[in-house]
Amino acid sequence: MFKKKIGKKFIPLAVLTTVAFGGLVGSYPNAHAQPQQQNKTNGKIKNVIVLIGDGMGVSYTSAYRYLKDNPSTKVAERTAFDKYLVGQQMTYPEDPAQNVTDSASAATAMSAGVKTYNNAIAVDNDKSAVKTVLEAAKEEGKATGLVATSEITHATPASFGSHDESRKNMNAIADDYFDEKVKGKHKIDVLLGGGLSNFDRQDRNLTKEFKKDGYSYVTKRDQMLNDKNDQILGLFAPGGLPKKIDRPDEVPSLKEMTTVALNKLNKDKDGFFLMVEGSQIDWAGHDNDIVAAMSEMNDFEQAFQTAINFAKKDKHTLVVTTADHSTGGYSIGANGIYNWFGEPISAAKRTPDFMAEEISKGKDAEQTLKQYIDQKILPLSTAEIQSVKNAAKTNNVLDIDNAIEEIFNKHSNTGWTTGGHTGEDVPVYAFGPESEKFAGQINNTDIAKNVFNALKYPIHIKDK
Amino acid sequence: MFKKKIGKKFIPLAVLTTVAFGGLVGSYPNAHAQPQQQNKTNGKIKNVIVLIGDGMGVSYTSAYRYLKDNPSTKVAERTAFDKYLVGQQMTYPEDPAQNVTDSASAATAMSAGVKTYNNAIAVDNDKSAVKTVLEAAKEEGKATGLVATSEITHATPASFGSHDESRKNMNAIADDYFDEKVKGKHKIDVLLGGGLSNFDRQDRNLTKEFKKDGYSYVTKRDQMLNDKNDQILGLFAPGGLPKKIDRPDEVPSLKEMTTVALNKLNKDKDGFFLMVEGSQIDWAGHDNDIVAAMSEMNDFEQAFQTAINFAKKDKHTLVVTTADHSTGGYSIGANGIYNWFGEPISAAKRTPDFMAEEISKGKDAEQTLKQYIDQKILPLSTAEIQSVKNAAKTNNVLDIDNAIEEIFNKHSNTGWTTGGHTGEDVPVYAFGPESEKFAGQINNTDIAKNVFNALKYPIHIKDK
Repeated sequence: MFKKKIGKKFIPLAVLTTVAFGGLVGSYPNAHAQPQQQNKTNGKIKNVIVLIGDGMGVSYTSAYRYLKDNPSTKVAERTAFDKYLVGQQMTYPEDPAQNVTDSASAATAMSAGVKTYNNAIAVDNDKSAVKTVLEAAKEEGKATGLVATSEITHATPASFGSHDESRKNMNAIADDYFDEKVKGKHKIDVLLGGGLSNFDRQDRNLTKEFKKDGYSYVTKRDQMLNDKNDQILGLFAPGGLPKKIDRPDEVPSLKEMTTVALNKLNKDKDGFFLMVEGSQIDWAGHDNDIVAAMSEMNDFEQAFQTAINFAKKDKHTLVVTTADHSTGGYSIGANGIYNWFGEPISAAKRTPDFMAEEISKGKDAEQTLKQYIDQKILPLSTAEIQSVKNAAKTNNVLDIDNAIEEIFNKHSNTGWTTGGHTGEDVPVYAFGPESEKFAGQINNTDIAKNVFNALKYPIHIKDK
Repeated sequence: MFKKKIGKKFIPLAVLTTVAFGGLVGSYPNAHAQPQQQNKTNGKIKNVIVLIGDGMGVSYTSAYRYLKDNPSTKVAERTAFDKYLVGQQMTYPEDPAQNVTDSASAATAMSAGVKTYNNAIAVDNDKSAVKTVLEAAKEEGKATGLVATSEITHATPASFGSHDESRKNMNAIADDYFDEKVKGKHKIDVLLGGGLSNFDRQDRNLTKEFKKDGYSYVTKRDQMLNDKNDQILGLFAPGGLPKKIDRPDEVPSLKEMTTVALNKLNKDKDGFFLMVEGSQIDWAGHDNDIVAAMSEMNDFEQAFQTAINFAKKDKHTLVVTTADHSTGGYSIGANGIYNWFGEPISAAKRTPDFMAEEISKGKDAEQTLKQYIDQKILPLSTAEIQSVKNAAKTNNVLDIDNAIEEIFNKHSNTGWTTGGHTGEDVPVYAFGPESEKFAGQINNTDIAKNVFNALKYPIHIKDK
């Protein structure tokens, strides 16, 4: 599979979905690593919740545990995730030029069970649309939802709810969300996230079209929380939402969006499918920003706990949580030092991005740093403040951002090797009926395979 | 647990072993991630094999899979490990100054169930000796063995078979191997690895003492393979063994040492305990040498497969495999590039260390490079050859080594953040009766806890 040679043209694959699903059915059994039934549900699945921490490799889940650690105890306290770890998955794409995945290819593997090229939104290497688990759920009469902190048209949610040859076509993806119907009905009942600019455009205003078809349309947290409708389009920023620690009151948390989605979707007597993405763990990793990464891990953990709480009460809900890949080559410890510290990170009241933006707008660098970094926890040296002042002279917000990030990377002993993704296996967490199928060493396509099976959707005999 | 404040003195902990074991018994249940019984053994354990890939974090196990991948197929072929993945473990030490573990502290956690300071060889934070699973096995009349590619007195094996306040005291550790007895008998029946200089010394020659007490003493592969004795001391190098791809015929592979150990230990009707370490995955990581890392992964995989084959046939053997920590902040992909290539690594017929040593001894740099790097697979550029020639002018073997490593890191797109260890969770593999106890998110102390339990050793009521 891993070739050094690159650049060959796409090879059309006849009936790829069938082939791929055939492969899935005959795939690795993981017979030696199956957990026991996790609660007494007699295996009857009504609802499926898939949560994806974009970029959330094992360094992130481990570091987040140590960030949350109570220093007054001798043990490392566990995160909400830990209890549900069942294994890990491989993330490689099937791309002619790259063997480390992007979020589109990985999400297509998880939504449709098909390995494809990077940038592909629920299309195979032949650029033909492949059926997603969200679509299968809707075909079976279930309610469906997508929740994200990125644009709701971004690669991960897009690969569950639309089809496009490129993730870049976010306007077309927004169109798909409205135009593509299943049995005459809109495909997605709950859409909550960012990306208003992809819906309310000069050429088309999808917010009005959704409203006309009975959806609530909200742009503020309170509107969302007070809404009583079953179907909703909530767009809380032109692009991605602010990071959790930067978020103003009118922008909801991922937990709040997840809670609203669950409440609405759960009204459907046939059950539901919901995908929730902690989208910006990855963005923080691309930026090599450990403060933002941990902010978004916290946002995602709370959404995960909400899903688990729902599933525990409901007893007929399968919850699967994983990452699409890891990002940044992030390491816990760097430069020969055998320590990693969460405390300096917890000193940040805003992300370096937020602070850099303020400084680039003309605010005083030193004042801004001292306003947003708790000086009792992380007292800044004169040299550190000067490094940010020097960056501010360039008036380049990226330089300022990098200078601030460097302070946190140094104090926490955080290492990075790339501004891109990395190829190591990522953790898989599962709870509820059939969660044992996700155990051991699996492939990202197994996520879709197992969800199709959980939905009793006859994947292996379906054509595309 | 994770404190930024450092430097406090060791705090003596009364009856630490009891306290720690009490903690273990009440430890995290992982009730939601237990695999099913893996083979029909009715839970009767006669033998336990613990294999430790030193430094073998998830980037190593993932990269090794992709290195082995067959490029003519669409899937990524699995390694011997994959089928047995059951979860991951936390590796943090309980050290007053460091929260990323070293191999001694981690091995003590896995051998004795006690979190302790870095450098500690089976002693607690009070520097009191703590009972190891190897000692427990010997108390129960089982045969015992230690196999490693490092000095057999190095931190990991030492923490199973000796007690010392510092890993640096390798001579004293060798003395322990001979002097410390259980019920009047030598504690360890099979010792195979490197470290001859710690046994045959000016002040004491332990090789003669072992021979006098009935052990075979061998220093060559053939001697080891032909030996018929039950007890053996095999020391195949003054320090660590050469890396697998550098190893001359007279030095055995880890697989061969493991096979010999199993054959000898299995003669004991009461069963055995064996610890096998792939010691130099870690050394390669410290050196940021991807060629050496993959060489040692291959050596370790073959030993692992040998243990699994034995256990499958035997049906009363528990096999547990994990890492003590990860090393080097190694990432699959670096510098923004979405690719990692195994092919350039496979072009190496020797490690960069080996080539650098040859060049530093006066051999021609270009000839040496072309002799040991397959030019059909990885044709070197003039600039690359020149970079090694330039390093050779310094006559510093480390500079030459670094220059050669850089060629492989660049062509494979391998990233590194440190010459030390990193703190992320590491994979856990298990097979055989009671393997389900290792599933999910566990702590490194759970390895010892579960092995003590498998041995029916009453850990939670024992004092130290």
